[in-house]
This record gives sequence, C-alpha cells and structure tokens, in this order.
Amino acid sequence: MTENNEKTLVHPAFMRLAINKAMEGVKNGQSPFGACITRGDEVISCAHNVVWDSMDITAHAEIHAIRDACKKLNTVDLSGCVIYSTCEPCPMCFSACHWAKISKIVCGARIEDAKKLGFSELTVSNKEMKQSGGSSIEIVEGYMRDEAMEIFKRWQEQEKIRLY
Amino acid sequence: MTENNEKTLVHPAFMRLAINKAMEGVKNGQSPFGACITRGDEVISCAHNVVWDSMDITAHAEIHAIRDACKKLNTVDLSGCVIYSTCEPCPMCFSACHWAKISKIVCGARIEDAKKLGFSELTVSNKEMKQSGGSSIEIVEGYMRDEAMEIFKRWQEQEKIRLY
Repeated sequence: MTENNEKTLVHPAFMRLAINKAMEGVKNGQSPFGACITRGDEVISCAHNVVWDSMDITAHAEIHAIRDACKKLNTVDLSGCVIYSTCEPCPMCFSACHWAKISKIVCGARIEDAKKLGFSELTVSNKEMKQSGGSSIEIVEGYMRDEAMEIFKRWQEQEKIRLY
Repeated sequence: MTENNEKTLVHPAFMRLAINKAMEGVKNGQSPFGACITRGDEVISCAHNVVWDSMDITAHAEIHAIRDACKKLNTVDLSGCVIYSTCEPCPMCFSACHWAKISKIVCGARIEDAKKLGFSELTVSNKEMKQSGGSSIEIVEGYMRDEAMEIFKRWQEQEKIRLY
C-alpha cells in the first residue's frame, strides 16, 4: 500500500484483522463483533466486543477501538483514520466514530444481520445516521461481507448464546 | 417519594445531582454535561463528562454513568432505571441508554443548545432516534431546562474553551 498516496485507502488485510479479533472474542464467550482502526499503513488499534467480559453494555468493539486509539495517539481527534467493523456500527458506535472525526467506516455485515441474531439493535442504518445527523464521514458497506458473516455462524454454534 | 409506587417517578433532586456533577466537571476543565442514574429512590451512579480528563472521545457523562451502573449492579440490563441528563443525550448516548434498557430519559437542555456552543453534534433528536430506531424508551424533555442551561453559561465563562 505504500505506493498509494491515499491515506484512507481500504485494504482487506485490515478487515481480516478485525474479523480475526472478533473470532477470538467468540472463542472467549464474547459477542461476535470486531473493529480495527488504521491510519495509512499503520494499525492503531484492534478490539472485539467485551460487553460480557467487562459487564459494560457500552463495551462494543468500535467503542473500545476508538478509546484505545485516542489513548495511543494522545488525542480525541482521529481525523484521517479508517475504522473496519465486522458489522455495520450500531448508532452508538456510528456516533462515536463521528465524534472522533474518523474519516471512513468500512463494514461487512449489516445491522439487520445482527438484529436477526437477536440483538436489540436500533434499526437506523449508518447512511440514515449520516444523512439525518449531518456527518461528513464516508461509509463503505458490504466489504468482505461473506467472511464477516462467518463470525455470526461461529457464534451461533456456541453452547451458550447470550443476547442483549 | 416512598409514598409513590411508580418506580420511574421523576424527581428534581436527581436532576440537581446531575447538574451539580456537571458544574464540578466544568470547574475541573471538563465539558459541561452531567448524568445521574436512579432506580426508585436510589441513586445508582452520577458522572460528568471526562473526555479531556481521560483523553477518550466516548467519555460522555451518560456513557460513564451507564458503565458505572452496570458495574455497581453487576448486570448489563438497567430496566426500571431512569437517567437524568443535563443535556439531551447525543445519539451515541441515546443508543447506549437503549442498549442498557433504561426505562426513561429525563433531560434539560437540547442537543441544539450544545451545538450552539460549538460541539459537533449529530443533529438527531432523541425523539427521532426513538421513532426511527424502534425504541421503547420514554423521553421527558426540557426538565429543569433553565438550571441545566446555567451549566453552559458557567462553562462559557471559563478562560480556556475546548471543543470537539
């Protein structure tokens, strides 16, 4: 990627990191979601959902990745960063991306897919949030969707399914 | 309040706790927002925004109050709880309330008021979020609005104004 000047170029390797992280979470009994934040060629942070592990309903993968990135870069302004989410960020996480001034959201599965699993998703898509909220964040949907959906299948095979 | 059987009865004393907490935050150089979570007569958690203190863009008052309440009650389900917010929760915080299954949001100032201060608010009201997202959360707006707006005035008098 170094030959490309576009800082927010999208690369499958980064989504794969988010997917692998989500799979790691599923193995550890967590919810099936992962996120990775990058800036240019650099991985800034990578996290999976830890709602159960931390007993914190706000501990979505994107929130944790944003929190980690802020701490690592010592700023609350993540302009120029891309976030890869295995699933379209819920409105909480979309709004966190907006607050953080992240430039681009790249996501695999859809909010509707997560809702089908039984999670009590607010059914507002990122595109709707962007339009009604007046955000300049760029959205790339359905990126490596098939691989992202595999996380959900793996999660459904678990003996103990926990929803919220 | 003990004479009232309604668990989610709204009481000004709880909003005052949120306002005082926000004022404490302003004195310490934080952003002018506070939140308090109650269940029946009991105060579960009370927090002010600590975005600057923790260098975490997600560290809004409501997020912290929800996180604290989950830890204190050892659950991610805050059904039956009321959250008092000095300002209408941003879409991130509204969605966090929904995920936490909080029963009622009681808020003072409006998202539009915070936007006027210069914060880069997504201009989606709680009522819009509730309707488009399909949330059952109850919303009480404009509660002790004048007192809540005082926090903003106090914040604007600070020597160093920091926005995001």
